Amino acid sequence: MGNKSLAAVAAELRRAVRPVLAGHVMPDGDSIGSTLALGLMLEQLGKTVQMVSQDPIPATYRFLPGVERIHIGTVPDADYDYLVTLDCSVPERLGPDVKPLLSRPGIRVVNIDHHISTGPFADFNHIDPTAAAVGEIVFDLAEPLGVEITVDIGTCLYVAIATDTGSFRYENTTAGTHRRIARLMEMGLDAAAVNTRIYDEKPLAAIRLLHQVLGTLALSAGGRIAWLRLTRAMEAEYGEEVDVEDLINYARRISGVEVGILFRELPEGQIKVGFRSKRAVDVAALASAFGGGGHPRAAGCRFEGELAEAERQVLGATERVVAEAFDGRSP
Amino acid sequence: MGNKSLAAVAAELRRAVRPVLAGHVMPDGDSIGSTLALGLMLEQLGKTVQMVSQDPIPATYRFLPGVERIHIGTVPDADYDYLVTLDCSVPERLGPDVKPLLSRPGIRVVNIDHHISTGPFADFNHIDPTAAAVGEIVFDLAEPLGVEITVDIGTCLYVAIATDTGSFRYENTTAGTHRRIARLMEMGLDAAAVNTRIYDEKPLAAIRLLHQVLGTLALSAGGRIAWLRLTRAMEAEYGEEVDVEDLINYARRISGVEVGILFRELPEGQIKVGFRSKRAVDVAALASAFGGGGHPRAAGCRFEGELAEAERQVLGATERVVAEAFDGRSP
Repeated sequence: MGNKSLAAVAAELRRAVRPVLAGHVMPDGDSIGSTLALGLMLEQLGKTVQMVSQDPIPATYRFLPGVERIHIGTVPDADYDYLVTLDCSVPERLGPDVKPLLSRPGIRVVNIDHHISTGPFADFNHIDPTAAAVGEIVFDLAEPLGVEITVDIGTCLYVAIATDTGSFRYENTTAGTHRRIARLMEMGLDAAAVNTRIYDEKPLAAIRLLHQVLGTLALSAGGRIAWLRLTRAMEAEYGEEVDVEDLINYARRISGVEVGILFRELPEGQIKVGFRSKRAVDVAALASAFGGGGHPRAAGCRFEGELAEAERQVLGATERVVAEAFDGRSP
Repeated sequence: MGNKSLAAVAAELRRAVRPVLAGHVMPDGDSIGSTLALGLMLEQLGKTVQMVSQDPIPATYRFLPGVERIHIGTVPDADYDYLVTLDCSVPERLGPDVKPLLSRPGIRVVNIDHHISTGPFADFNHIDPTAAAVGEIVFDLAEPLGVEITVDIGTCLYVAIATDTGSFRYENTTAGTHRRIARLMEMGLDAAAVNTRIYDEKPLAAIRLLHQVLGTLALSAGGRIAWLRLTRAMEAEYGEEVDVEDLINYARRISGVEVGILFRELPEGQIKVGFRSKRAVDVAALASAFGGGGHPRAAGCRFEGELAEAERQVLGATERVVAEAFDGRSP
């Protein structure tokens, strides 16, 4: 328990013979990139590495070196001596197929993360909330592990760091973030080619879906709240294979808007509500009023029932919070 | 004439007493940010600095420190001893009100640029096509000039570099780009706040216009060409004050698309055609067939006449070029 230094984590990882590495459910660029980078590093040290993920790898990341070796779903049976969890704030984030490994007799658990809310649920925890991405921590592990950052490893680390910082735009980006990227590029990383793979290969359906969703844009609270709808009909027509994460930002990005909301109809008759705020409103508190949670600037909750009723309740609550935050001042 | 070292340019600038600084017509982030950064640096050295721009500063950049002091249009009459041109590949890029300064008796001209096609039209030229942005060159001038990069100067340099590299995604981005940004952040730059100003304050009309334009999306050549239309009616309703530069990228960004095209109706009965390509097609050559020009991956031309006729001719030519480039291979 407690927080271990990078050197201590590296020493522990060097002891592993047959480690299994796992990121979180619905994996993003940092989860996948960090898992692959650390997996390739541990293989350099001669270990028999297994990488697993509860959920499939989104199409965007399927070009990453080694990605075909991440096993999806049920964990292959083997005599693992270490479990390394990456980018998981709580054990539940591993997913139902992977989480049981935590309590497997004889397995030692190393937890590497950067979420401020992460508990020390493992035997060895390295939690650094100042890291922009887990990819930064894995980058820093290369030296104490004594491994070389190859172009393949650098590609995975770049994807981890670039996606978790919104291409270095978010406030988690530090001078150290840029220095690490400079080193990756000096090692031969073709960052532009990686960015083309991530950002310039959108499925046609994603652009058609964006058009549909933008058609639902509505504002309230004098332009302080903007929201969008993603209906079952739209997803049935365009969206099942499409990454819809960025849609909400088209609402948040509008000048004068403080809170952007996306209402998404799920197949099971639920409504998934996403919240993003700019600076004044704590959307984690807002989401928690509906049984959800998240960060002050990005949060979410789920709603049983009809879209219209979810909108009525959520918009009502958001308008009250916005009115308090701005105390009657106009946008 | 010829290309001068940074030290030589700095020595020349130190001689100035009353310099006038100018970027290019329809100024972008690099033109404005570099002008302001160098202007603030020369003021630190006690010079009487005048900054000018042929065209107005887009709303996105009006938060920049010192921006209100850039004089728009006719150059104020004064006894300038130096003209510094920034980000201008040819004298015409200065605009009709600014260009006459070039031939003014007694004025010495310093040309700082990073375009590969830039000619040495000035008395002192520093043209570095390896620089991702003119902002990088101005950053590097701080040391030989002997000036401090204040937070205000750093903000201008960040905007110059971040916008010209597409937030460090484009292939002009180097390790040196990231190292310079790291230094700016160590000097106290709040990069996230700057990014919020640039990317998260879109006019509502821009999002509504995006919706309209995405509704025109069409593809041909088996999905290798995607094009969008921006009509007079749309601009009349939403777009006059809106930056439309990024619209074409929604066409280019589609998976399998090699050439993205935007047809924009201009008020004077002309059609402005923008081309973007990914890797195989030289759109500068394509645009030049219609009297236009540009770079291999980004070019444009103008067309007299109706939208339908412009589309017919341009798409016909593009389909031929794409067929040649891919030689019958399917996307």
